[in-house]
Amino acid sequence: MFVQKFTIKRYSLLQNTLKKRQLTSYIPPKVRAITFNKHGPPTEVLRAVTYQLPPLTPTSLHLKFLASPINPSDINQIEGVYPIKPNFKTLGEHEKIAVAGNEGVAQVIGIGDKVEDLKVGDWVVMGKSAFGTWRTHAEATLDDVIRIPHEGIGIVKAATLTVNPCSAYRMLKDFAALKEGDFVIQNGANSGVGQAVIQIAKAWNINTINIIRDRPNFQELKDYLKSIGATYVISDKDLQAKNYEFEWNKDIGGKGIALGLNCVSGKGVISMAKLLRHSSSLVTYGAMSRQPLTIPASLLIFQNLKFFGFWMARWGNENPRSKRIEMLNDIIELFKQDKLKDVICEENIWGVNDKDDDDVLTRNFLEIFKKAVEEFRGKKQLIKMI
Amino acid sequence: MFVQKFTIKRYSLLQNTLKKRQLTSYIPPKVRAITFNKHGPPTEVLRAVTYQLPPLTPTSLHLKFLASPINPSDINQIEGVYPIKPNFKTLGEHEKIAVAGNEGVAQVIGIGDKVEDLKVGDWVVMGKSAFGTWRTHAEATLDDVIRIPHEGIGIVKAATLTVNPCSAYRMLKDFAALKEGDFVIQNGANSGVGQAVIQIAKAWNINTINIIRDRPNFQELKDYLKSIGATYVISDKDLQAKNYEFEWNKDIGGKGIALGLNCVSGKGVISMAKLLRHSSSLVTYGAMSRQPLTIPASLLIFQNLKFFGFWMARWGNENPRSKRIEMLNDIIELFKQDKLKDVICEENIWGVNDKDDDDVLTRNFLEIFKKAVEEFRGKKQLIKMI
Repeated sequence: MFVQKFTIKRYSLLQNTLKKRQLTSYIPPKVRAITFNKHGPPTEVLRAVTYQLPPLTPTSLHLKFLASPINPSDINQIEGVYPIKPNFKTLGEHEKIAVAGNEGVAQVIGIGDKVEDLKVGDWVVMGKSAFGTWRTHAEATLDDVIRIPHEGIGIVKAATLTVNPCSAYRMLKDFAALKEGDFVIQNGANSGVGQAVIQIAKAWNINTINIIRDRPNFQELKDYLKSIGATYVISDKDLQAKNYEFEWNKDIGGKGIALGLNCVSGKGVISMAKLLRHSSSLVTYGAMSRQPLTIPASLLIFQNLKFFGFWMARWGNENPRSKRIEMLNDIIELFKQDKLKDVICEENIWGVNDKDDDDVLTRNFLEIFKKAVEEFRGKKQLIKMI
Repeated sequence: MFVQKFTIKRYSLLQNTLKKRQLTSYIPPKVRAITFNKHGPPTEVLRAVTYQLPPLTPTSLHLKFLASPINPSDINQIEGVYPIKPNFKTLGEHEKIAVAGNEGVAQVIGIGDKVEDLKVGDWVVMGKSAFGTWRTHAEATLDDVIRIPHEGIGIVKAATLTVNPCSAYRMLKDFAALKEGDFVIQNGANSGVGQAVIQIAKAWNINTINIIRDRPNFQELKDYLKSIGATYVISDKDLQAKNYEFEWNKDIGGKGIALGLNCVSGKGVISMAKLLRHSSSLVTYGAMSRQPLTIPASLLIFQNLKFFGFWMARWGNENPRSKRIEMLNDIIELFKQDKLKDVICEENIWGVNDKDDDDVLTRNFLEIFKKAVEEFRGKKQLIKMI
């Protein structure tokens, strides 16, 4: 297996190589990509393919992916149950295939003569969903990408920037006019988005009440979430217990909880929604319970609660690039100040060496992705390509 | 029983009597009121009381109620399960009692010297909830009431103006920027609000898709709803049937359904919500099924549906009087143009004759209200006081 420990030293070497390559005689690299030509279970339909990146045009960019995570939406997109459809097209000799993956960080390795605002060596993230990030290299246009000021943030942060932290950031900004000292409640608080909510809220002096499933290592997880900034942590069992004395009651006073964030759905949403203050919003961005939300009509009619959904991909499509850049810069600043930490994730490293046999490399690339996809239900998976 | 058929002739006689009384020597009348001093089932806790209206002050008004309906919220308020609490206070020799009833139409029979903008003979409706409309007379201030231009609309329309037609009007106005030709879908379409929605939408050239429970006389009710302006009527059973070919599909084309109104709640909301177009709203104003709403998370996340509640009483408290007057005038105009018809209701008439014995009158007043409350689950009940 090509799973190797990633070190800063190796990465610097790589950067030097890239710069040199561009300055002397730039040969578009071979691409290894994880693709599919029909929907189905990832382990069945994913194929690794190799193709030659076309020559640079005046308006094109060549990217080398540094790392791409595996998100739930990537899996759903391969399965065909995600509303954003993959981009089936011809790549090299392969017709009507789509490259999997929606998130990732890449380095610019080649730039067309007419492309401004970018230089070789810059790091970029994807401007939209469905770019196809599970590949070693890609051709792109300026519109496809957003440059990030990556100095001081590692590859893991850069590669996992655009989905989870951005979702947390937007939900905290767009559904309530939160002020310092306000309270937000969320379930699934240990999810990727949940942990980002805790940390961003903490950075903005907003208190979080965090619901997690009851479990044997509850105290351990509670301690961890508090260590990253959670104000309160409670189990779903305690939340639903009758006459349970919430420890936050003394802090909140009369002002109530200003916002609810839900990634679990099901009946458990009721006990969370009941704690929200009059006229506030509950935002749903997931359904980990695989159950629909249950909402007593009285919460809508008399409490005037508002129920919204949030989907980062839609936000990206409906908002100007400038707003996205502003958000990414804010988040990167939090990363740099260490207010937003790495998501704990399983790093699968795929090392490429130009001398290696193509088929061997390609097969191994697929193996790593398939293994990561299979193990996905556990820890968040990230594929580094070095 | 003092149940008598109401006629225009009798009413005119009454008006003349009132005017004469005011012009000559005005003696504040005795009030018969349906009251309660504790919460419970209406038939158990309601008491009829008699008390003397206090003399006019420079800023007070004296009202004679013409008719008051019985609404679900009135019952809930007596039971103690309505969020707007009744106004317990001293009336005559009776301490800490509340007069039941939130809606009704009254005629001004006496005006303090400093009260402007009103004259004896004017008709008024209540400016807020919890005034206590189940009584023959009341003392009020200008703030308590809103004058309505009643010429050409009958007592039934005037007495049932401020809850159902206003709810329908606001929900059609406030949750979607509806244009002529747009489609709205609603369940419980034969309810009081539902019928108002059909008629107001029709007047504004908006199409309605109306869901009613399947029933033996389905066709009859469907015909009736179409006769008052329903574009389409469908049973809940057909709506939920798989692969049912909706007859409105050919009319709607690609633009979808712009708004959903829900007074039923429960699981049935799903099939209705699924028909709504992307980013539209579903407004809940009731839960006739006595079940919570069930909402698939995908409708929130990917379809971006928004779920709101509507409660006329809250709207009244949160919006300026001027906006309420504008709405009432619009609705009265629809009444005058016969675009909004009387709600079919059971009229219970209580005739008062000053020569009658007080106790007998009071007891009969209570009997009529109790009977009406008991029969409430059937047809809408209205008490005329003449």
